[in-house]
Amino acid sequence: MTAHSRVRGNADAIAPVVATALPRRGVGLDEFRWSPDGFWGERQSTNRDATFAHCVAWMDRVGWLENFDRVARGEVTEAHAGWEFSDSEIYKLLEGMAWEMAREPSDALAATYADLVARVAAAQDADGYLCTAFGHPGLPERYSDLEMGHELYNVGHLLQAAVARVRSHGEDPLVHVARRAADHVCREFGADARQGLCGHPEIEVGLAEFGRAVGEPRYIEQARLFIERRGHGTLAVRPLLSADYFQDDIPVSQADVLRGHAVRALYLSAGAADVAVETGDDELLETLRRQWSRTVERRTYLTGGMGSRHQDEGFGADWELPPDRAYCETCAGVASTMFAWRLYLATGQAQYADLIERTLFNVIATSPSAEGTSFFYSNPLQVREEAPAAVANEVNMRAEGGVRAPWFDVSCCPTNVSRTMASLAAYAASIEGDTVALLQYGASTVVAPLASGVLKLRVQTAYPSDGAIRVVVDEAPDAEVTVRLRVPAWSRASGTAPGGEPESLARGWWDVTRVWSPGDAVLLELDTAPRVTWPDPRIDAQRGTVAIERGPLVLCAESHDLPEGVELDDVVVALDGSLAADADGATVSAVARPVSGASGAVAYAREPYEPLAETPLTLPLVPYFRWAERGPSAMRVFLRAEGSR
Amino acid sequence: MTAHSRVRGNADAIAPVVATALPRRGVGLDEFRWSPDGFWGERQSTNRDATFAHCVAWMDRVGWLENFDRVARGEVTEAHAGWEFSDSEIYKLLEGMAWEMAREPSDALAATYADLVARVAAAQDADGYLCTAFGHPGLPERYSDLEMGHELYNVGHLLQAAVARVRSHGEDPLVHVARRAADHVCREFGADARQGLCGHPEIEVGLAEFGRAVGEPRYIEQARLFIERRGHGTLAVRPLLSADYFQDDIPVSQADVLRGHAVRALYLSAGAADVAVETGDDELLETLRRQWSRTVERRTYLTGGMGSRHQDEGFGADWELPPDRAYCETCAGVASTMFAWRLYLATGQAQYADLIERTLFNVIATSPSAEGTSFFYSNPLQVREEAPAAVANEVNMRAEGGVRAPWFDVSCCPTNVSRTMASLAAYAASIEGDTVALLQYGASTVVAPLASGVLKLRVQTAYPSDGAIRVVVDEAPDAEVTVRLRVPAWSRASGTAPGGEPESLARGWWDVTRVWSPGDAVLLELDTAPRVTWPDPRIDAQRGTVAIERGPLVLCAESHDLPEGVELDDVVVALDGSLAADADGATVSAVARPVSGASGAVAYAREPYEPLAETPLTLPLVPYFRWAERGPSAMRVFLRAEGSR
Repeated sequence: MTAHSRVRGNADAIAPVVATALPRRGVGLDEFRWSPDGFWGERQSTNRDATFAHCVAWMDRVGWLENFDRVARGEVTEAHAGWEFSDSEIYKLLEGMAWEMAREPSDALAATYADLVARVAAAQDADGYLCTAFGHPGLPERYSDLEMGHELYNVGHLLQAAVARVRSHGEDPLVHVARRAADHVCREFGADARQGLCGHPEIEVGLAEFGRAVGEPRYIEQARLFIERRGHGTLAVRPLLSADYFQDDIPVSQADVLRGHAVRALYLSAGAADVAVETGDDELLETLRRQWSRTVERRTYLTGGMGSRHQDEGFGADWELPPDRAYCETCAGVASTMFAWRLYLATGQAQYADLIERTLFNVIATSPSAEGTSFFYSNPLQVREEAPAAVANEVNMRAEGGVRAPWFDVSCCPTNVSRTMASLAAYAASIEGDTVALLQYGASTVVAPLASGVLKLRVQTAYPSDGAIRVVVDEAPDAEVTVRLRVPAWSRASGTAPGGEPESLARGWWDVTRVWSPGDAVLLELDTAPRVTWPDPRIDAQRGTVAIERGPLVLCAESHDLPEGVELDDVVVALDGSLAADADGATVSAVARPVSGASGAVAYAREPYEPLAETPLTLPLVPYFRWAERGPSAMRVFLRAEGSR
Repeated sequence: MTAHSRVRGNADAIAPVVATALPRRGVGLDEFRWSPDGFWGERQSTNRDATFAHCVAWMDRVGWLENFDRVARGEVTEAHAGWEFSDSEIYKLLEGMAWEMAREPSDALAATYADLVARVAAAQDADGYLCTAFGHPGLPERYSDLEMGHELYNVGHLLQAAVARVRSHGEDPLVHVARRAADHVCREFGADARQGLCGHPEIEVGLAEFGRAVGEPRYIEQARLFIERRGHGTLAVRPLLSADYFQDDIPVSQADVLRGHAVRALYLSAGAADVAVETGDDELLETLRRQWSRTVERRTYLTGGMGSRHQDEGFGADWELPPDRAYCETCAGVASTMFAWRLYLATGQAQYADLIERTLFNVIATSPSAEGTSFFYSNPLQVREEAPAAVANEVNMRAEGGVRAPWFDVSCCPTNVSRTMASLAAYAASIEGDTVALLQYGASTVVAPLASGVLKLRVQTAYPSDGAIRVVVDEAPDAEVTVRLRVPAWSRASGTAPGGEPESLARGWWDVTRVWSPGDAVLLELDTAPRVTWPDPRIDAQRGTVAIERGPLVLCAESHDLPEGVELDDVVVALDGSLAADADGATVSAVARPVSGASGAVAYAREPYEPLAETPLTLPLVPYFRWAERGPSAMRVFLRAEGSR
């Protein structure tokens, strides 16, 4: 197979989600390519050249790979390395490697992949059970801790890895392992078997997609069973947890908002969306869409980040969006993208792609360092004091945010970033009959096998630095087809069709339908001037502030850029039109207004606090994804604004 | 002994803290009495008549008492009931009962007390070790989990109970048990023995005071050792915890602010203050005072509540004071009172009594229901949605706040409230040479054995409902002595000495020195009109809001009082002078300004949000301590104020 040349049916797409029941599908990794020197292309290269090896080395060092070898050798496990879910990290990495090899073959990567798969396969039991933390000598019994044991969660990630491999390559040892594991799960947890479910959803989305990928309806049915079983208080509640932590409080079909542990809630929702589509359950799909809408409107940060609480790594109440204690786990960003993508495929609505863009640029791109070897786990929107530097060569225990670390005690984020980066092309465009929709922008090429024939496009842009997006046709069928461009909700936009005049565009879609000739071009112009963004007044923790955005990028202020003696929390920005673009960020006029409190008394007064001084300054803002690149810093996304007390 | 008649030296005071090295001491329970129909007197009666029996019944029901019996019988423990610290709940209750019997003897209470003490004593090992969760058949080894095992913490509470008993009654079986336990701890953890410390401080404050009470310097020295040992990273850090959780990150003598688990930090500080006083370590005392000042100025809520995070039940960073996620554990209020009281005794400064007042009225008084049989565990300052009602007859698992529950899985607060209520007189006044200082106001009587003779006072007031406080002399020595009255920082105040004119008073102290005659009276007038209070602008989560206070009481708005269809979070109060007193609360003009967000988009806009409507209303405010008395409600202390977005 040659990249950029195949024309295929939906079912063959090299993509994480392929729902043959739907009229549209995402492009495959061989149909869309980010330019290597563009925003995402650069990150994909870093992922390939640095992150994979980094993760393998750490997993080796901390014993997560050795876990498999010991089980394979039949030895008694004295101390299982890592948490019960450490196996899943290897699977997420294998998924990333499988996508990466589809993006760009590599003998070195293929060798590493084959070695890892062999070690995984050797640890699988004869009946298909596969887990290094349970069910072997020295370990607890199989399925003895469904609440926190993560056995099915691990299998879910194994299945997602196998999806990547079977779609990009075909049958191989990993796919074989995954089939045996999925069969085992169906036997153990089928309708007439154990009525259990896993404390951490993931098996649902894994089974549903693997069922699609290998054409096995039993797997999809098992996913449906798991979704249906959830929400009836089956999982035992432990002290200081409640059933909403693992979404076992209310059935998915009856909930009205996401709640509890954010990654759990989002993986579950993604799996439920797959089940809804595969079973034609429109009511379930509608419920999920309502849950998504309220969650996005009331429980989501400007960055797209989800999870307002460190406690339980969970969603908060509506409007509970503190910038400082924002958890916004990187993995929740990945999971949110998974959920939104499925709703986009099911509905074709631009709002889902809007959220994906926000999340990709401001959560996913924020996590890894430029070198791809250290990561943010949580992504708060304010840090008052510079975090202590990460311990460079050690496992970092905490996930407080403020500093990227090479590895964590719970190290779910690096591999999740890695698999997302490798498969990122799949979320960039979709195909539906004679329409190709461009969803995510950046210099790229598209080969879209439309109903009437192949349409090849080149996207020329410096996005996100610049809002001009030129789409050039390189090859087109001899029939009328549509190029559909997403007009992000954040932008005032204009579009120029071939030979036409610029026209103003409303948010949503801009469709240009015609018989195209090579060389035809459309121009979409988005407004990437820095802009002021106002939080909803119901968000108490952000009142009296504004954020500054530029294109799809949320900007932030860092203490690195403040004059000596000025504290970031004393800075109040002017809303006087002084906002100006600067490099890839902006500058804005501001004033530092320090106050002093009463000694030995609580921080409250009978009159509004009067500033001790007024120091004018020009405040530079940088993209949030660059935060802490210059070392730990105090940082704010939400800036006190003129008139704020 | 007859209450209200003894004259004694400092060392004999019936009080929780008696530092003979200091020139001042708090009054004993036989020297100060709250009027039964006053604010605190009523609560003390409820504590006596309802709370003790409530707690005993629950401890019996959940098996925490049976834990002692099983150990006493030498049986194998199959399942220890409750957490490792459940023993401490019995000790806190015994402490409360001991104080209560000193306040007002009761045969019924004496019988219950004796029964409980006998069951406790029966479980003590021959070498003095006493714990039902470790060190017996079926249980983990002694001291095998110093980080989270709470064995020494339990002993600390036992010692505090014995302090109450030995001071109010003299030797008895509980005091005997406590001596043997303290001796055991000194042997096991002395300078030349195991260099360990307990993950939860409390043993320090227990040993220090018990050492004072029974005149045993070894106990005080052991407390000093424990304080000195802390802060060197001795305790093993577990995943998702760091050493600051149990204050093992920095030695007490070198820290600059309280951090980590709030109750731990405050108990530790109280013990360190005792050690500083007893060893004459002025440097340590000065360090503790600095830590207290920064903590109060930057990490304390308007209510006096401490602990900004549910995560780790901990302090947050400076200025991290979210109303909605305020943890403000009731026990942290108790612990803060313990710490501040010791600093008051050491320094004689009014600021410490100011914080105690704030905490007593707005944290301690808030926790119990009017019936004294259900309790708030955490005391948030905002709840957006009515909490589900507590399960009346079951152990409640969560401590989210918003509803009082009869018992908790971790049920530390009910007994902590109970022992504080019973001993509350001890914090109300102090004696120093020929000065009696009145620190906490309410209808009460005082018998102060001053250097020159006994001074008897009657305090006539409807405080906190009214700010007029009349102090009448009933008996006085034939010498010049001083009546010192605290002038709270929150009040404009005036004072009228016998035969004098009203004079304006500055915050701090008002001293009236003279040779008093029976019938002489002084009048302190505090301003209890409702007043607007402004948060420091550095508190991000309270920006654009004000609070309303009245006297020492923080007020709040409850959804119960809103017109149909108005949401509390849409209400903006006017700063137009419309604030008026109403019953024991206030009313203020306000307007409801609902907004609507964009569907399917994050809650941010390119222009300030425009209200959909403006509905004027009069907003009633009630004392925060009355919150949820009418059933679960949405509630706010910090109200959006005119001009807030």
